[in-house]
Amino acid sequence: RINGERLWESLMDMAKIGPGIAGGNNRQTLTDEDRQGRALFQRWCEEAGLTMGVDKMGTMFMTRPGSDPDALPVYIGSHLDTQPTGGKYDGVLGVLAGLEVVRSMNDLGIKTKHPIVVTNWTNEEGARFAPAMLASGVFAGVIPIDHAYARQDMDGKTFGEELERIGWVGDEEVGARKMHAYFEYHIEQGPILEAEEKQIGVVTHCQGLWWLEFTLTGKEAHTGSTPMTMRVNAGLAMSRIIEMVQEVAMAAQPGAVGGVGQVKFTPNSRNVLPAKVVFTVDIRSPDIDKLNGMRATIEKRAAEICAGIGVGCAVEAIGHFDPVTFDPTLVGRVRSAAEKLGYSHMNVISGAGHDACWAAKVAPATMIMCPCVDGLSHNEAEEISPEWAAAGCDVLLHAVLETAEI
Amino acid sequence: RINGERLWESLMDMAKIGPGIAGGNNRQTLTDEDRQGRALFQRWCEEAGLTMGVDKMGTMFMTRPGSDPDALPVYIGSHLDTQPTGGKYDGVLGVLAGLEVVRSMNDLGIKTKHPIVVTNWTNEEGARFAPAMLASGVFAGVIPIDHAYARQDMDGKTFGEELERIGWVGDEEVGARKMHAYFEYHIEQGPILEAEEKQIGVVTHCQGLWWLEFTLTGKEAHTGSTPMTMRVNAGLAMSRIIEMVQEVAMAAQPGAVGGVGQVKFTPNSRNVLPAKVVFTVDIRSPDIDKLNGMRATIEKRAAEICAGIGVGCAVEAIGHFDPVTFDPTLVGRVRSAAEKLGYSHMNVISGAGHDACWAAKVAPATMIMCPCVDGLSHNEAEEISPEWAAAGCDVLLHAVLETAEI
Ligand SMILES: NC(=O)NCCC(=O)O
Ligand SMILES: NC(=O)NCCC(=O)O
Repeated sequence: RINGERLWESLMDMAKIGPGIAGGNNRQTLTDEDRQGRALFQRWCEEAGLTMGVDKMGTMFMTRPGSDPDALPVYIGSHLDTQPTGGKYDGVLGVLAGLEVVRSMNDLGIKTKHPIVVTNWTNEEGARFAPAMLASGVFAGVIPIDHAYARQDMDGKTFGEELERIGWVGDEEVGARKMHAYFEYHIEQGPILEAEEKQIGVVTHCQGLWWLEFTLTGKEAHTGSTPMTMRVNAGLAMSRIIEMVQEVAMAAQPGAVGGVGQVKFTPNSRNVLPAKVVFTVDIRSPDIDKLNGMRATIEKRAAEICAGIGVGCAVEAIGHFDPVTFDPTLVGRVRSAAEKLGYSHMNVISGAGHDACWAAKVAPATMIMCPCVDGLSHNEAEEISPEWAAAGCDVLLHAVLETAEI
Repeated sequence: RINGERLWESLMDMAKIGPGIAGGNNRQTLTDEDRQGRALFQRWCEEAGLTMGVDKMGTMFMTRPGSDPDALPVYIGSHLDTQPTGGKYDGVLGVLAGLEVVRSMNDLGIKTKHPIVVTNWTNEEGARFAPAMLASGVFAGVIPIDHAYARQDMDGKTFGEELERIGWVGDEEVGARKMHAYFEYHIEQGPILEAEEKQIGVVTHCQGLWWLEFTLTGKEAHTGSTPMTMRVNAGLAMSRIIEMVQEVAMAAQPGAVGGVGQVKFTPNSRNVLPAKVVFTVDIRSPDIDKLNGMRATIEKRAAEICAGIGVGCAVEAIGHFDPVTFDPTLVGRVRSAAEKLGYSHMNVISGAGHDACWAAKVAPATMIMCPCVDGLSHNEAEEISPEWAAAGCDVLLHAVLETAEI
């Protein structure tokens, strides 16, 4: 068993960096807070005897050597970056649980055949730079690195500039590493485990996603002196699209979601009808046909809505991954570890995207989940208990040991 | 007749301060650009022999003395501040036409019984600090000065701080001045004069307005892992309210408008359902019962929409004026000046709010309008011709002369 107290203490220490305004965290990727978080994690890892490699996307690979010089490493990864109003566990738990696995192995004097590499992927959240899971996407060969470097935040700063600024451009080619297996432990971010009173989610799949960025072009005009009939109201078109996305998602139940989290009006003045409205539609489903069908319907109906008002409509897919099926052997190891340790468990499908989804492209991969209170995540009020955190970490230890071979 | 070339040259010179990105202006109130615009206007006025008074709201009063020491002044006013993506004429034309009237009187050696005061009101646009027509509202005794000072921009800076910062807190008590009459010359900002091929709008009324600021409280949650049934989606509620405002405004045709120009999502991240959505509904009508009826319907239906989704709904009226009827004597003088000068004219109702609406509370007041291309305003592409500008300024000169008495 791992040391649950030590894991919890590390979680609380990391949460001191980039505190939020309501008990959570604002430690967005490539900010000064991210830099501080990385430095703390590096220190802890080096104290545990790990050696660091960093790739050109700034991803940190912390290696505990194995006994067989030819054996590929077993990776344990997740992310230390957070949403602007994020929780203390989303991502962080997976990284620090990886560290705790290594610390426990050290305590117990366990030596594995395969090396263990604890990984902190850059920009998992996609809050500052879309898409999410950017560094693992480059690692998996799905996203070109130049595209990643050129991604801009709301202030127009690029990923490349900001990675350079915080001093974390590594020398490793991205994706050069080969993995024997990849494990990721994460909070569920949904309500099912808590409702079903299960300690462990055995993650068999992850649903697929499209992020559709709409740019609507209206006619900037005075809200008072422009007659209703002369308006080309991009904000009205946006409203109809948001309502339509809701309808499409409801019609695709069960097993689908759709919504809008980000909206930008230009010029965003109370007495000016917007010249331009940019917003991102987020749709997901574990069923690829359903997912792509939703996308097609949304694009078609949005075009009709805009044409009806005379608003220009451009759509760019700025984030995407297909639904993922995790490696059955690793999934089985997670399930039997939970079984052996006496933890209640059930199969779950991940609602959120994770670096494991990209890792699954290049290696056998799977995930472990623990419940979170009220299924709440991407909210500073995100909460888990120390016992929940420890149980999943125990399962991680055992599944990893079986894979890395003692 | 006034000197149309000189008027146009002044307009073009002022437009050099705070240039926009598409040929217009970004000279928002109490910015460094506003300070530069004020300094230029002050210099021009002093060169024309005017003396300056400034009140505690930073409004500039530039006086040309009259021959009768007991006669109250005739005011000509408008504003030099612009929208973030504003035109070169909205407001500026009225202020610089006032200056041109004085310059023409100087050229012609005309002395009036009543002094003439050319006025630049602070923060007419309401883009940076809501509500619009803030300084004239304080002048008319409708808005308390403490309320005005405490208004905040998007960055949380207050009107009071920013007025102090640019160095334009005057010593006059706001509203202490008494007016014999108030004239305001403005571009129409609507399509009617151009469509009807009239040179002059004789403004008989101004429609009333409500700015309703909605604050919707949802449940911040992950867009991927939060099931549709568990969402408390404030953005969806906003969309339904924007659509409903459109319906209410259409049902109130003719003689009403309604729309939304400003929207703010928090935290505004692509994969987070918003915790909070703040937006401003702008509704207007020349008919007070219709206006207030629209407000009541919108507030009632918005509450129902939010209750249906479980979203919290708070509404604050952050801007308001009743419909205004301008002074019939002054309106008659504008009409007969146009007649005498041979300019085509028609009665119009102002669709936009103007400082004249507040001045009308404390003095006989009226307005003159000229057409603008395609009715476009609050858009950098706002355009008028030098001939249109000059015609209205001629009418202003004659109506003012009749009122100020030679
Ligand atoms: N786990 C997580 O919240 N990842 C962010 C990417 C997503 O939106 O699913
Ligand atoms: N004239 C003008 O655009 N004033 C701004 C106030 C309003 O929204 O009507």
